[in-house]
Amino acid sequence: MKKDKTQKKTKILVIGGGTGTFTILSGLKKYPQLDLSVIVSMMDDGGSNRVIRDEFGLLPTSDVRQCIVALSDEKPGDLLRKLFTYRYNAGTGISGMTFGNLFMAALADIYKDQEQAIQKTCEFLDVKGKIIPVTFDKTHLVARYENGKQVMGESTIDDPDDELAKYRIVELEVFPECTPNPTAIKQILETDYIIFGPGDLYTSILPNILIPGIAEAVRRSKAKKMFVVNLMTKYGQTNKFKSSDFVSELEKYVGKGVINYSLVNKSKEFPEGILDRYKLEKAKPVADDLKDTKLMKVIRDDFISGEVYEKPSSDKLKRSLIRHDPDKLAKAIVKIVV
Amino acid sequence: MKKDKTQKKTKILVIGGGTGTFTILSGLKKYPQLDLSVIVSMMDDGGSNRVIRDEFGLLPTSDVRQCIVALSDEKPGDLLRKLFTYRYNAGTGISGMTFGNLFMAALADIYKDQEQAIQKTCEFLDVKGKIIPVTFDKTHLVARYENGKQVMGESTIDDPDDELAKYRIVELEVFPECTPNPTAIKQILETDYIIFGPGDLYTSILPNILIPGIAEAVRRSKAKKMFVVNLMTKYGQTNKFKSSDFVSELEKYVGKGVINYSLVNKSKEFPEGILDRYKLEKAKPVADDLKDTKLMKVIRDDFISGEVYEKPSSDKLKRSLIRHDPDKLAKAIVKIVV
Repeated sequence: MKKDKTQKKTKILVIGGGTGTFTILSGLKKYPQLDLSVIVSMMDDGGSNRVIRDEFGLLPTSDVRQCIVALSDEKPGDLLRKLFTYRYNAGTGISGMTFGNLFMAALADIYKDQEQAIQKTCEFLDVKGKIIPVTFDKTHLVARYENGKQVMGESTIDDPDDELAKYRIVELEVFPECTPNPTAIKQILETDYIIFGPGDLYTSILPNILIPGIAEAVRRSKAKKMFVVNLMTKYGQTNKFKSSDFVSELEKYVGKGVINYSLVNKSKEFPEGILDRYKLEKAKPVADDLKDTKLMKVIRDDFISGEVYEKPSSDKLKRSLIRHDPDKLAKAIVKIVV
Repeated sequence: MKKDKTQKKTKILVIGGGTGTFTILSGLKKYPQLDLSVIVSMMDDGGSNRVIRDEFGLLPTSDVRQCIVALSDEKPGDLLRKLFTYRYNAGTGISGMTFGNLFMAALADIYKDQEQAIQKTCEFLDVKGKIIPVTFDKTHLVARYENGKQVMGESTIDDPDDELAKYRIVELEVFPECTPNPTAIKQILETDYIIFGPGDLYTSILPNILIPGIAEAVRRSKAKKMFVVNLMTKYGQTNKFKSSDFVSELEKYVGKGVINYSLVNKSKEFPEGILDRYKLEKAKPVADDLKDTKLMKVIRDDFISGEVYEKPSSDKLKRSLIRHDPDKLAKAIVKIVV
């Protein structure tokens, strides 16, 4: 009998959303011995997603879209991949929208089912791996700050006003109640490794963990859990956070002692002039004070990308300039898992 | 030496735009012995095209889009073909737009070249045949009516106000001056047959013929020329036109004695109740008074489609309800050319 080759692959599940998830998936997909899947947050409500949510009445698909591009088959000059990263910069109501979101919105209407629309899009772009929306319910992120103030909506939490930005988030939750995608629970329980991040803690990683049933499944899962610690602090969210703060804040929501590996950047070689630009936004490199514990090993390496990301003018959202290097990150992960 | 099979195919060139062109191409493409090409008008400025013209600064692509769908390879359940016929019905500024136009607008921006964008789209949808925009210049249709009044813009001429609708169009021209697509001229000179229509005379067929050089090339071409005479009159354009009026009005612009075959519907079997609906719009079946001449043969047959087209609510433009049947029309044409 023929041996099923996929059986031998190491199952890796990334949990996140946003550009950090795009980065790590782009790196990992070069390793054919890995069986990749990704659970993505469905709570973005800024930019293109606001229109998709409020005007189309659909779930936001920007995080799904980025994963699709990351995991789609890269044929040379592939037109559809190019289109899926394209953002319109003309047309009233169209400018700022991504082609990918409009593509999936059209399919959701054609099939009268957004889950099927995402599925068909993945097939169409020849996606290698599973892209799993964390929930199919419409729900919002709610943050409570040290000063007692509550704020709703991922994009508002991502970019709070100056008054609020001084305070730390003391509690994050979702509203209204929702149910997890059963496929997400199943994948968490069946995977060999779970990787949190890289990505914004409060607006990319935790929006997955807050969905009822997800944190519990992570704790029950026999998979080893990794956390890719952020490179930079973010004013208004993780201001003055050290590497240990990132880990303890993640574990506050997912469960104490859950993380088995923390991947921390040790390089100080930031691209020239870039830190000055971050300084203007009151952000700086994350100071590293993590220590190995009985439960968690700290992996230190150079994870910084030499390329500086410059966002196109049609993109109205803030994007990080310093990013993890997909290949350096993937190499370190593969060293752990294989 | 291997014989080039394409050499033996009969070259058919359709000149038009709009749903009539979609119809005839859909019928003809079932005959593998035909080598199809189509010259399409680039002057539409209503609905989705208005946004493409005014807000994206591009040439209108709705006529191109319909030809692409007609000539694209029909795999069962083909997602992209479905999408290309999809019109959004949600989203401020997005509702009413067609996916196909947004697809080509994104590509035009990516390639910074609309001609290439159209070309790439044809390749992508596996289009069998050549789709040739009549011009790449931005130009408008101008109509002068019996009462001396001039009106600019295809969509306005297509649906004039009540005051103007009473009068006949006495002169149609384009403004500003433009140059023809050299590929269009070449195709006219090299083809075996040229078919005008079916389609609205003033807003689908003549917008091609008015482009400088086109009518002259048609007259010089050794190809046999056919004209698919309209099924219904159209109030405000071809009010009370008989079949001979359609022919003489076409020949007024393309050249007297140019048409070799006129295809006229002889069936009176219109779908039930449909003529009453047309009556409300002051339109009726075209009375047939055509006679064979030394230069032109009249082919009479049943060309009516049994299906009544009902437009989706997201489509704000008027569309004809009675249409030519693609297969009946193609059969009659094939009988002439093969």
